Amino acid sequence: MTGHEADVLVVGAGLSGLIAARTLLGAGLTPLILEADTRVGGRILTEDLGGLPMELGAQWIGDTHHRMFALAAELGVETYPQFDDGETTYELAGTGVLRGNEFHDRFAGELAELEKVLRRLDGLATEVDPATPWTAPHAAEWDAITAGAWYDAQGLSPVARTLLEICTVGILAVPTVEVSFLHLLFTIQTCGVTSELFAESEGGAQTTRFVGGTAEIPKRLAAMLTEHLVLDAPVQLIEHGSDSVTVHCRGGRTARGRRIIVAVSPMLAGRIMYDPPLSGYRDQLTQRMPNSAAMKAFFVYDEPFWRADGLNGQLISDVGPARMSNDTCIRGDDRGVILLFLEGEQARTHGHWSEEERRAALTAELVRHFGERAAHPQLYVDGEWGSRQWTRGCYNANCGPLVWTTYGAALAEPIGPIHWASTDTATEWSAYMEGAVEAGERAAAEVIEALTK
Amino acid sequence: MTGHEADVLVVGAGLSGLIAARTLLGAGLTPLILEADTRVGGRILTEDLGGLPMELGAQWIGDTHHRMFALAAELGVETYPQFDDGETTYELAGTGVLRGNEFHDRFAGELAELEKVLRRLDGLATEVDPATPWTAPHAAEWDAITAGAWYDAQGLSPVARTLLEICTVGILAVPTVEVSFLHLLFTIQTCGVTSELFAESEGGAQTTRFVGGTAEIPKRLAAMLTEHLVLDAPVQLIEHGSDSVTVHCRGGRTARGRRIIVAVSPMLAGRIMYDPPLSGYRDQLTQRMPNSAAMKAFFVYDEPFWRADGLNGQLISDVGPARMSNDTCIRGDDRGVILLFLEGEQARTHGHWSEEERRAALTAELVRHFGERAAHPQLYVDGEWGSRQWTRGCYNANCGPLVWTTYGAALAEPIGPIHWASTDTATEWSAYMEGAVEAGERAAAEVIEALTK
Repeated sequence: MTGHEADVLVVGAGLSGLIAARTLLGAGLTPLILEADTRVGGRILTEDLGGLPMELGAQWIGDTHHRMFALAAELGVETYPQFDDGETTYELAGTGVLRGNEFHDRFAGELAELEKVLRRLDGLATEVDPATPWTAPHAAEWDAITAGAWYDAQGLSPVARTLLEICTVGILAVPTVEVSFLHLLFTIQTCGVTSELFAESEGGAQTTRFVGGTAEIPKRLAAMLTEHLVLDAPVQLIEHGSDSVTVHCRGGRTARGRRIIVAVSPMLAGRIMYDPPLSGYRDQLTQRMPNSAAMKAFFVYDEPFWRADGLNGQLISDVGPARMSNDTCIRGDDRGVILLFLEGEQARTHGHWSEEERRAALTAELVRHFGERAAHPQLYVDGEWGSRQWTRGCYNANCGPLVWTTYGAALAEPIGPIHWASTDTATEWSAYMEGAVEAGERAAAEVIEALTK
Repeated sequence: MTGHEADVLVVGAGLSGLIAARTLLGAGLTPLILEADTRVGGRILTEDLGGLPMELGAQWIGDTHHRMFALAAELGVETYPQFDDGETTYELAGTGVLRGNEFHDRFAGELAELEKVLRRLDGLATEVDPATPWTAPHAAEWDAITAGAWYDAQGLSPVARTLLEICTVGILAVPTVEVSFLHLLFTIQTCGVTSELFAESEGGAQTTRFVGGTAEIPKRLAAMLTEHLVLDAPVQLIEHGSDSVTVHCRGGRTARGRRIIVAVSPMLAGRIMYDPPLSGYRDQLTQRMPNSAAMKAFFVYDEPFWRADGLNGQLISDVGPARMSNDTCIRGDDRGVILLFLEGEQARTHGHWSEEERRAALTAELVRHFGERAAHPQLYVDGEWGSRQWTRGCYNANCGPLVWTTYGAALAEPIGPIHWASTDTATEWSAYMEGAVEAGERAAAEVIEALTK
């Protein structure tokens, strides 16, 4: 690789970087992707567990993820619907475990309150342009308070407030007091409406899965780019002129190009050295978009026994350790698979535990919800993202108070020959695979415009 | 430097790193400091302006900064008192500029309100142990709200609330809605009481200056360490075993030691690669302690003409651009020097302006406060820290909601042979030079304990 030359360098072989490279190639430009890890996929990671593809990272797409549906079709990756029949189980407010119907009866008032707040959020979110959240009429006000403080001010009953927190943390993977209210509205607006986002909704962001595992997508993209991809090449330094870049990787390897697309999260982009150094404005942004904290844990059983009880495998709990779960059985296999989410505080706390302790606590939770058979899984695997050196947190980058209004304009704005991708820079479905594709295509289009027009 | 060996490597020749190295040397251990910049001093930076030492970085010490007084005495750096005679001028709430006496008369009620809140803060801060803020009885509650939200809830009149914001931003250098209330209380408690910290107080943190400039301190320390100091050596990678470290710097240079002290701000420490990678717990902390934003601007006049008017050169303003100023004349020189502070939002906004625009706006402000003579400075200089590659923001690192309670324990805890210094890890006068000395001595003591006991 020393002395390797390309038209355009791409940092990161996550979905966004792969899409950018493929788009460049299609426009007649030669890309070279430098990936720090020894695999492609970034926040997409499918691991084999007893012959089953377990999605430790990104798992679903939703009905409005047009780019992803088109991509899967093009790559020949088949899709299948997420199982969604039956009742959810609830364990909230000291009631013990209740089935959905009973919960909805008992807490009809609280659920109506929640619904009202979600409609209010949907209304406010329409004022936010996801490409420029800082221009919203009330941006200054909304960016000065946390989403949690806004939630607290809605006069919700404890059960409704707890449900709202659980739903929101299921998306942000950090507690709502850590992000600005403007950031929450941005997140909602990049996805459409809250019903697209939040748990319990039919449709939404989690309707569809990939046969063979999500990793088939980056794998097949990478197969089309083998001559343009270097693994195990952590970028340490980007030297940039007006129309040239030289990249130095760990171990002394270098590569040269005319432009570069940095397709990693803003925080990771901030850890690269730039020569000349980037502005304080850009740099301070990258100091203020930390990645969130999420873990997934999978239990495999001989069959999805909860379905026979009329349950959909989804739990909502304020007891935990997991706040939510999902029936994540694999098409074509008879075994039952339950996925438990540990997000935000749950991931932080339980990420410290030994796998054994974590598994035991999660098993106990499953038994409460789905009965004794849950105590006897065949297989178990979990995955935490903060400790993964080349990701350092999932699902995405979140903004605390005043980040959007102060530094937001630096998020995707090119600096000389340096362009920015990664789902965190997307305007539709930011934080999702759909956003990764959008951002990769947008950054590639910027480069194509600069080099070929 | 390739193949250079030492007992202990130190990353960063700021005050904390220099003190650590000197302490190690005194204990019979051989240190080697690797400094990324071409100078020592870190956030201490004295620049010559027409023969006057201008403090673009750290400038003052206060009466309780015992370590700094002892250090200055030992190094033969003389001190002199900050000028503090005369009235402050105020420009608040649309009143135009008022002299202190008039302002105090007109707003006596508001100032009494402010005083009450400061006393309340002092009381609450005593519940916070600066070494373990997360153990405070109300830590969870205080860390879930921003300092700004707590301020807003105190029922203050607009003038009192504005004054409180100006005073606080003068310390944190970010708006109060960006930091957790627990972080504010930690900051107060590391310094003693609010009266030690906030503007307008006699005594406090800004009583004393250094003859020849603050940079004399790191310069003289470095002179004692010439054989143990390498400049222009940005550390990119720290390989660490149980009792050994190898450091790789930009340009391919390496150094080896048994232990290492990383004496840079947590965010900068997070930008170094570690092999093996550090835990997600430590890493996520470094993603969540951004450096704040501060600029200083100096105007030099033929004499300190404001003194003859009975003014102390200190302004407090909500009009700006600067919210505060200071008489910063140099002992032994007849010229008048005014220092204007741009902190938080002010630094962010005006840091984007051209120097000419910034200077013009600041000049207009000085004219409003000190009269026509302020329009004709002999000299001007300003300095912004976010754009400085090896600092990336001043004065210090701040924590948003939930950072202390979630990740605080990772701040100063050694990881194998890696120890952490920098003023941001101090328990007394964190963010000040006094804290840098404390942290450097503490980290050195940890290493000495490990290697010699």
